[in-house]
Amino acid sequence: MKAEQLRINQARLLAALDELAAIGRTEDGSCCRLALTDEDKAGRDLVVKRMRELGLEVRIDPIGNIFGRRAGREDIAPVMTGSHIDTVRTGGRFDGCLGVLGGLEVVRTLNGAGIATRRPLVVAVFTDEEGARFHPDMAGSLAYVGGLPLQELYDTRGIDGKRFEDELRRIGYLGDAPIPLYRPHAYVELHIEQGPVLDIEGVTIGAVENLQGISWQEVTIVGQSNHAGTTPMRLRHDAGYCAAAIGHFLRQLARDMGGNQVATMGKVDLHPNLINVIAARAKVTVDLRNTDEALLKQAEQRFAGFLKQLAADEGVKIETRSLARFEPVIFDQGVADLIARTAQRLGLSCRPMTSGAGHDAQMIARIAPTAMIFVPSIRGISHNPAEDTKPEHLAAGADVLLHTLLELAA
Amino acid sequence: MKAEQLRINQARLLAALDELAAIGRTEDGSCCRLALTDEDKAGRDLVVKRMRELGLEVRIDPIGNIFGRRAGREDIAPVMTGSHIDTVRTGGRFDGCLGVLGGLEVVRTLNGAGIATRRPLVVAVFTDEEGARFHPDMAGSLAYVGGLPLQELYDTRGIDGKRFEDELRRIGYLGDAPIPLYRPHAYVELHIEQGPVLDIEGVTIGAVENLQGISWQEVTIVGQSNHAGTTPMRLRHDAGYCAAAIGHFLRQLARDMGGNQVATMGKVDLHPNLINVIAARAKVTVDLRNTDEALLKQAEQRFAGFLKQLAADEGVKIETRSLARFEPVIFDQGVADLIARTAQRLGLSCRPMTSGAGHDAQMIARIAPTAMIFVPSIRGISHNPAEDTKPEHLAAGADVLLHTLLELAA
Repeated sequence: MKAEQLRINQARLLAALDELAAIGRTEDGSCCRLALTDEDKAGRDLVVKRMRELGLEVRIDPIGNIFGRRAGREDIAPVMTGSHIDTVRTGGRFDGCLGVLGGLEVVRTLNGAGIATRRPLVVAVFTDEEGARFHPDMAGSLAYVGGLPLQELYDTRGIDGKRFEDELRRIGYLGDAPIPLYRPHAYVELHIEQGPVLDIEGVTIGAVENLQGISWQEVTIVGQSNHAGTTPMRLRHDAGYCAAAIGHFLRQLARDMGGNQVATMGKVDLHPNLINVIAARAKVTVDLRNTDEALLKQAEQRFAGFLKQLAADEGVKIETRSLARFEPVIFDQGVADLIARTAQRLGLSCRPMTSGAGHDAQMIARIAPTAMIFVPSIRGISHNPAEDTKPEHLAAGADVLLHTLLELAA
Repeated sequence: MKAEQLRINQARLLAALDELAAIGRTEDGSCCRLALTDEDKAGRDLVVKRMRELGLEVRIDPIGNIFGRRAGREDIAPVMTGSHIDTVRTGGRFDGCLGVLGGLEVVRTLNGAGIATRRPLVVAVFTDEEGARFHPDMAGSLAYVGGLPLQELYDTRGIDGKRFEDELRRIGYLGDAPIPLYRPHAYVELHIEQGPVLDIEGVTIGAVENLQGISWQEVTIVGQSNHAGTTPMRLRHDAGYCAAAIGHFLRQLARDMGGNQVATMGKVDLHPNLINVIAARAKVTVDLRNTDEALLKQAEQRFAGFLKQLAADEGVKIETRSLARFEPVIFDQGVADLIARTAQRLGLSCRPMTSGAGHDAQMIARIAPTAMIFVPSIRGISHNPAEDTKPEHLAAGADVLLHTLLELAA
């Protein structure tokens, strides 16, 4: 069989996804494999077992990252693919797992066809991408590229108070491979979109060219609790109103700035949170994202100016705390274009895309030419048991991954 | 001593307030005497004991309302004063208690001076004014004037699932006096303002002429949960934004309508309430109040119109549920004017006022000429251990009550 006609096996890929999804499954159908828990260990054990069955050389680094290497004809820099298998508490079946198991399905397909590549192929499983137990998210890939000192990561406490290093050792994934084990020739990550764009537009493949910069802030407003009936409007210092004004402003900001600026107030906590009491305190979160660092900074500055005016107008105290700040990431245009050409060659609809979510790929992009392949998420739902992607789209993404890797490894 | 020179005893009044405040006191200094609990019973027992010591004829009706009657020279319709001694979970020392113990201090003062009045004087303690355990609030006075069928009240379940009647019987306050025991010649209630107006303006006495109408709604918004990074603004159905838009609109509404229209969003609950997830659902409360029923209706209508537009614009489902609706109450102008003249005669600063909170007086106003005396709440704080009023203001309020009752009972 010519390499060009090669296709991955959809049924085999789905079975592998089902097998992993059964580990940590909860009553509502979610997957719960928080990083470095027993469920994460069980998922890792399964993936390592499958890697070994495929003849991959498995190595683990001191971060717990797992690498399965298929030798190339030459012992040179490998082409790498991969993702993560840890989940949030109410994770879906495909987030991360598709990238890892899609990579293994590519290997299985190449093995079956007896195809050797010039460069080695590596399938990577990065530790703690979700950050749902240990902050920050993408910790494993960030530490892999030197962006997070190992000791700092080790000393991180989880939401349950446990130390990262202790938990990593406990589950038996504190390895001894050097960091970084590989500096890949290129890195390609297959992932579900986790957004609604491909689904709504009816497009099968997203060739991801860049990744939004993220600015997360927590805003704390301290006003004055008072009776909602007896306190005239002019005498109010209403933290609840300020929270509302922030949510209203963010929508206006995104509308004014246009482009791909997004702004979200996802979390609001008022105190005392009673119907007839003007809120004394409010804590809200603000999520700003843009693909352009200058515009993201502009959004932050406009928001800061708004808060200053709001505090003065309402007679309240407003403090902000940065919870996360990532600059936008520009992926390698050559790799992104290759993904788009490959999709076209396979007869699949494709569009260039921006990722709104963070992915391990953004970290690996610091040390290697990188891009991502997205497949549609039905109704854009993710981090939810209702997360879903059509089987043929899962297979299409893996086929694009197969041929993109073949091209890069040639 | 001429009746005109008569003054209540400030130290004695403060001691009585302290004595009652000690019952149900919590660690943070709050008073917690939820209606029909053991603490409420202990408070009632103390008040009844003090009533008997003052020679009052104590009677209890099947609602648990307590009446202490001081005979007049003629056996005709009494002049009534009173309030409540139940509290919210974090109640202050004076809310309600000042009206009851202020009334007893008036009796004590008259007894000491050997002054008889033409009409009997009655000090009333109404059951469950706060509604913090059994809905609705002002239940005891509402049932007293026939606004709430006894059986309906009896079958009401508290926040702890207990039945009103069972708890009333348990604490020994299911009496047998007819309902209503008295149709008073007039009713005057002394109360702390629970708002900031008197304190900020430096005025000692409020002659309360009317009481705001209240409209409480719960608004439920059902949108679509999605990723805050990957979902373009145009594709959002953001329940969190809708909650913010409501809070923002309410402020505009109150500003546009002016007068004494107030509007508050005191409670906001988002789901899932996470920084990076567009909220799927929001539940907020809306508190609208006005002294003019037509204007209050206008506010409700404008709000309903806004919600309809918001639901259409954002592509969400919005439902409202009325939690409470009271029309404004106009007190008796003659009684309110008498309070104002009395304050003036005593050399106390006074202003006409609107009550923003609900009080037993609004129910008694249905069967008798009624008005209220307000004294300042420091910083307007109430339902809070920090609730406070200067001792001389407590005494001033009781003096105005004394002379208003004397005039009405003459």
